[in-house]
Amino acid sequence: MLSKDLAGLRYTKGHGTENDFVLYADPEGLRPLTAEIASWLCDRRAGIGADGVIRAVPADAEAQARGASWFMDYRNADGSLAEMCGNGARVFVEFLQAEGLVSCVEGQPLTIATRGGLREVTPCPGRYSVDMGCAPESPGPPVWVGVPGINGMTLGTTFRLPNPHVVVAVTEQELRRVDLTDPPELNPVLPEGTNVEFIAIRGVEDGVGHLAMRVYERGVGETRSCGTGAAAAALAARAIAGEGSPNHWLVDVPGGRLEVQITPTAQVLLAGPATLVAQGTIL
Amino acid sequence: MLSKDLAGLRYTKGHGTENDFVLYADPEGLRPLTAEIASWLCDRRAGIGADGVIRAVPADAEAQARGASWFMDYRNADGSLAEMCGNGARVFVEFLQAEGLVSCVEGQPLTIATRGGLREVTPCPGRYSVDMGCAPESPGPPVWVGVPGINGMTLGTTFRLPNPHVVVAVTEQELRRVDLTDPPELNPVLPEGTNVEFIAIRGVEDGVGHLAMRVYERGVGETRSCGTGAAAAALAARAIAGEGSPNHWLVDVPGGRLEVQITPTAQVLLAGPATLVAQGTIL
Repeated sequence: MLSKDLAGLRYTKGHGTENDFVLYADPEGLRPLTAEIASWLCDRRAGIGADGVIRAVPADAEAQARGASWFMDYRNADGSLAEMCGNGARVFVEFLQAEGLVSCVEGQPLTIATRGGLREVTPCPGRYSVDMGCAPESPGPPVWVGVPGINGMTLGTTFRLPNPHVVVAVTEQELRRVDLTDPPELNPVLPEGTNVEFIAIRGVEDGVGHLAMRVYERGVGETRSCGTGAAAAALAARAIAGEGSPNHWLVDVPGGRLEVQITPTAQVLLAGPATLVAQGTIL
Repeated sequence: MLSKDLAGLRYTKGHGTENDFVLYADPEGLRPLTAEIASWLCDRRAGIGADGVIRAVPADAEAQARGASWFMDYRNADGSLAEMCGNGARVFVEFLQAEGLVSCVEGQPLTIATRGGLREVTPCPGRYSVDMGCAPESPGPPVWVGVPGINGMTLGTTFRLPNPHVVVAVTEQELRRVDLTDPPELNPVLPEGTNVEFIAIRGVEDGVGHLAMRVYERGVGETRSCGTGAAAAALAARAIAGEGSPNHWLVDVPGGRLEVQITPTAQVLLAGPATLVAQGTIL
């Protein structure tokens, strides 16, 4: 019966490398995004269906003073709040443009407000680059990871961005074979849980590294793409390859390709496509 | 890039007991429903997302002469053609009404054309009843079914409606415990595959039987509801209960409740809700 309360709501469905979202604009702040509304909208059979919901609402006075007009109010499919979502931030800015709420200039960063603080999103030809914040100086304590499809336990590299990640380097064959139906086994067990990325390094060309990744997201399962996961994968690949290894990585995920750059000031930039698929109204 | 070809297409998303569909009207016959279009529309992450697509197109002259104005052109999410879909037929008629393509009168059957022949759909308060055709006189050869959550193999009752079904009676506890991640094991193996229904009979009140069902659909996996599966479940429950058992069954599925009646002339009627969730346009 929740759909009756939402009758008339105009929404857009979009995705970034097949991480998909229902988005709606709420310029007057009249349609708060509750956990219940998020989980109904994300219900793939009884609702609209998505990995998360993004509501565009005017930023508060402090964020406005710092140049951010719009706040990205984001909830996961289970209704929980999330600080930020790299794939979502790109789709959010594409949506703000399509709705005429901002007008972007290619190459010029737009500041948006998120629960994780202000973020800069820069439109580039055919995609967006998102400033994901500062890279951790070094990995955290390593963790053993066990998963069906790979014999024995493999040592994984850990990073917080700020959500926890364990990155495991495997062969191309193992990457295809890994079974991510259930959460990977960890030793030591991490009580708060973690995302686990499996990566196969494909090589380096003209100073640009190339890797393939599959990801098990904490509390979700295997997904088609994960923005912070791609960043963790690039950081781990750089740490594994050692001194002189690239700061620029192409990351192939099941839903497409992301690009990660680590700047000389240790900022992590995540670039990738943003696609709006349909515009609809709840009946 | 397929979405570009579909730009401007107006569609509706709806479901019957959480068996969900993308529907569109094509009164001029200008937008054929290809396998490629169906699988893109059904893609839950890169497209709109559904179990199947239903296109409303004017029926051919022969069907028109027999009273059917509209043909239900249906494809599954994998692009394959299906003869009929009991849940889909209800949502189809609700859609035809919402689009103003038919005007129904409560209690009076509307004839629709399907790949499985003409079907009558009768609007009742809050739901629709669909004539699913004639019930088989008796079950086919029994089949042993094995599934994680139940010890050993259990003998199942088989029916063709006309798609194949094996129905296994279990306890309420077993019904909850059954693991339908993988297809159940069958003996003898059925080379063309089969749907498998697990049912727990809950009792009979005022001549109406009540059962709960979970279903593994051939080529799909566990689903929230299956119309022909509910019909097979009611036929099997009647066969198990023996002489004097009800011809009228309430069937609780994970996505809601269906009602099956077997008429004195052995017609199977399937009744249940039809919900339109949203109307949209492909961008």
